[in-house]
Amino acid sequence: MTTVAILGAGVIGAGWAARFALMGRDVRVCDPNPDAARIVGAVMDRARASLPALYDVALPAPGRITFHDTLPDAVAGADWIQESLPERLEMKRRLFQAVQAVCAPGAIIASSTSGFTPTELQGGATRPGQIIVAHPFNPVYLIPVVELVGSAATPSETLDRAADMLTAIGMSPLRIGAEIPAHIADRLLESVWREALWLVRDGIATTAQIDDAIRLGFGLRWAQMGLFETYRIAGGAGGMAHFLEQFGPALAWPWSRLTDVPEMDADLIATIAA
Amino acid sequence: MTTVAILGAGVIGAGWAARFALMGRDVRVCDPNPDAARIVGAVMDRARASLPALYDVALPAPGRITFHDTLPDAVAGADWIQESLPERLEMKRRLFQAVQAVCAPGAIIASSTSGFTPTELQGGATRPGQIIVAHPFNPVYLIPVVELVGSAATPSETLDRAADMLTAIGMSPLRIGAEIPAHIADRLLESVWREALWLVRDGIATTAQIDDAIRLGFGLRWAQMGLFETYRIAGGAGGMAHFLEQFGPALAWPWSRLTDVPEMDADLIATIAA
Repeated sequence: MTTVAILGAGVIGAGWAARFALMGRDVRVCDPNPDAARIVGAVMDRARASLPALYDVALPAPGRITFHDTLPDAVAGADWIQESLPERLEMKRRLFQAVQAVCAPGAIIASSTSGFTPTELQGGATRPGQIIVAHPFNPVYLIPVVELVGSAATPSETLDRAADMLTAIGMSPLRIGAEIPAHIADRLLESVWREALWLVRDGIATTAQIDDAIRLGFGLRWAQMGLFETYRIAGGAGGMAHFLEQFGPALAWPWSRLTDVPEMDADLIATIAA
Repeated sequence: MTTVAILGAGVIGAGWAARFALMGRDVRVCDPNPDAARIVGAVMDRARASLPALYDVALPAPGRITFHDTLPDAVAGADWIQESLPERLEMKRRLFQAVQAVCAPGAIIASSTSGFTPTELQGGATRPGQIIVAHPFNPVYLIPVVELVGSAATPSETLDRAADMLTAIGMSPLRIGAEIPAHIADRLLESVWREALWLVRDGIATTAQIDDAIRLGFGLRWAQMGLFETYRIAGGAGGMAHFLEQFGPALAWPWSRLTDVPEMDADLIATIAA
């Protein structure tokens, strides 16, 4: 893989551009936003200052980042085409149609979508199997995990190749076996986010207290070993089965606010932003 | 503070014992389990091997850990009495009645409860205001955060003193202004846990994939800055308000499984434990 097209250069697209470039790939950015070059530049500066520190060896010579006004100019001959547009399905589908009219049939077209499934994204495509989900986490140049999802139309060889390409730029592709809205991680995040909003809305905790409870508490555990492994260890000698016996019943207790969604009105936004 | 009583020496009680002892406090352990001394010894070994590495300076000379068969022997003259019994309210209340018959009126009686509120714990107590919640995280000797909660009966001076004592042993007390079942952190954890169980139950992801999504993904962010600060930064120059505009609508999308609680039957326990 030598050439990458980045379609949409907000925080996520720019993060992809920085990671690909610092891993030696040439990057072509296409975004109508006149501010795109500034955003990519700022993200590149931060990535340059931090990504090399994760490695004991020098990174390869960086690739070139260029900016392109037209889609064909950006995607023609690209090996990897990463879409990071806003979460509007029709907009993404129209883009993929335009991309497939000019890109190489063997190129990977990957979407950064948080919520849509590959089958949804492939609707209306000329070659559905060419479009996959590669959902990263901000900052893309530092966080290794990327959720990789295909549909029934996706050849597994395409996912193999995508996983290899992502591994080659220092990422940890997580192949998810089923299509589901929001994949895995954002479903977990959404559930925490909803409960956290209630705690703020109800005046139980401030955003700073919630952040402290996480970063000085279970966030430290999760950065080491995730959720299940943490609980397996908490189970002591009895392991996970013992933990589940102890903790399982609490699941039926009315702790969290669950389904209700707090209305994101001006008051709540102002409270959180402040 | 020089003397601590540890009532209940499972994984959590033993973790408290190790932290207090390594921070120079004498610790009296009371637990009818004949295995208690072995558990405390094993946890102490792990704590001794890891806690000193968090500090640039030497820890104080460790306190003595002694084991006591009777409650009066353990709590008489203790400055801090930490209860870490199983989550059964009546059992805890009976213990507090027995403790208050023999302990100093000025001692702090703190419960490690994950779920009960101070008002619930204080029911039937001789001196309700003496009993507070000090909810830690496993491993107690490493994770700094401790949720500190009182009821309307709790003098704020008691919480001030408790916070000082916990700070003195290297913890970060988080004073929660309202009584709510499961305080703050376990409500957040429960919401993630419930969604994770569904993902396993429905065959979408394995426990290892969920752990990878966390430890190679958002767990890394949360160990640095928690939830809200992560999103404020993800909002780019527009900050939290911009992020909420973008992300807010997704809250109404049917991503997570929400209220339904998967039945923790033998199949699911076996799947997770395996």
